[in-house]
Amino acid sequence: MKVILAEKYGFCAGVRNAISTAEKVLAEKGRVYSLGPIIHNPDVVERLAQKGLVTVDSVEQIPAGATALIRSHGAALEEISHLRRKNVDIIDATCVLVKRVQQIAAQMEREGYKVVIVGDRNHPEVRAVVGCTQGAVVAGDEADIKTIGDGRLGIVCQTTQSPEFFGRMLNAIVITGFSEMRVINTLCKEAIKRQQAAIDLCLKVDIMFVLGGLDSANTRKLAELCKKYNSRTFHLQNWDEFDKKLVFGCRTAGVTAGASTPQWIIDEFVKKLENIEI
Amino acid sequence: MKVILAEKYGFCAGVRNAISTAEKVLAEKGRVYSLGPIIHNPDVVERLAQKGLVTVDSVEQIPAGATALIRSHGAALEEISHLRRKNVDIIDATCVLVKRVQQIAAQMEREGYKVVIVGDRNHPEVRAVVGCTQGAVVAGDEADIKTIGDGRLGIVCQTTQSPEFFGRMLNAIVITGFSEMRVINTLCKEAIKRQQAAIDLCLKVDIMFVLGGLDSANTRKLAELCKKYNSRTFHLQNWDEFDKKLVFGCRTAGVTAGASTPQWIIDEFVKKLENIEI
Repeated sequence: MKVILAEKYGFCAGVRNAISTAEKVLAEKGRVYSLGPIIHNPDVVERLAQKGLVTVDSVEQIPAGATALIRSHGAALEEISHLRRKNVDIIDATCVLVKRVQQIAAQMEREGYKVVIVGDRNHPEVRAVVGCTQGAVVAGDEADIKTIGDGRLGIVCQTTQSPEFFGRMLNAIVITGFSEMRVINTLCKEAIKRQQAAIDLCLKVDIMFVLGGLDSANTRKLAELCKKYNSRTFHLQNWDEFDKKLVFGCRTAGVTAGASTPQWIIDEFVKKLENIEI
Repeated sequence: MKVILAEKYGFCAGVRNAISTAEKVLAEKGRVYSLGPIIHNPDVVERLAQKGLVTVDSVEQIPAGATALIRSHGAALEEISHLRRKNVDIIDATCVLVKRVQQIAAQMEREGYKVVIVGDRNHPEVRAVVGCTQGAVVAGDEADIKTIGDGRLGIVCQTTQSPEFFGRMLNAIVITGFSEMRVINTLCKEAIKRQQAAIDLCLKVDIMFVLGGLDSANTRKLAELCKKYNSRTFHLQNWDEFDKKLVFGCRTAGVTAGASTPQWIIDEFVKKLENIEI
């Protein structure tokens, strides 16, 4: 069948940097600890695990004096201090855009703003940004906003959210009431371009495939967005999850992928999909 | 019929101050020029005209050395300078909240922000705020926002707009794209309370009357809002415009009034409406 790739898709600069950093350090050290999965893609995590990357949930699990990688989502100040106390060699692969959010949040707090992070409170990026401040709060929905209170608000957004979500939360803040807010646009422009490219492609094809880890927030968001523009949208991790019944009656398929989806998974998927006879 | 007044309605502090200032100065001077109608209520304008208040459209129409009143909506810097050059005695009755918007807009511009005023570009308050800056722009709808461009935005709102409108415009700015915005809540809390009281009343009555000048932006906005919650809403200037046919089949009527509607008009309306037999 005819397969069209989105104009922008797949690994972003932050993910690419985290992986190449991990590969370089693994080549030197043989064993490196990653505080949480390096990216939300099981295929990549598995491949790096074979090279010596050990994924742990907390600093406690990292031996004193070992080497630890801070993934692209970043880490909280408390975790960094804990690693230092354990004399762990820290390799920081935090995405530069995420680092910027952390720095802006901390700076605004020093300037007396009550810091609000618009995003998903369970996402590691958001948890790390909160962990770089004394008392930042997360606004994940309208109910959270009712609890923020009236003060000078310093507002940032999780990098991979959509402008629509960011705008909706600001709208809710205005309706709930505020005195002053300083809002810094911390959305990743690359992520927005991918979202736009995915929408454009959705409108041209019979069926849409969004490739990436089922735990990957940005891939899930991309799939939800595509679903709005093409109801025949499927979020698959890789070719193993493909079923020929899905494409019944379709002539053209669109393919996009989350920021944590490696090129080899996309290439394999596209090649095999092109070979499907319709 | 049974008539219920909204919990908050009628003259706001800014309007009350402008009228009492005008009356005081008229008692001393006999003739005072008002740059535009002192408030958007023909009954009040007519009453003050009889006491010597002359309403003019521009500074050109004010004789040198005369006394001029700046109404609650304020005036542009250029108009103030022009009055000074003509040696006119200036009585400033600008509403304190409007003055605050002017000062914030000018201050943010000095700090390097591109100033955006959310509101109606034809409203005298908005024109005066623009006139207190070098290059502020007005955002009255989504189309305006597309032309703002990407910079450090300093955002204020016309005092009598609703939080819903202010929020919708900020949402549009986020979706269009921005780098940084500093937003100061310049909405009049009193106006918001009146809007809320009007909504509450709409839900309790068979018919709703919103009293005030047809040119009064805040009265028109109040009437539009009421219409959403009670489709049998009528915006009347005073009792002269009442028609018994309107209340056919109604047992209870609600009454509210814009910030520029004098108490005597409301009292007369309520009294006569109560005497209507149903």
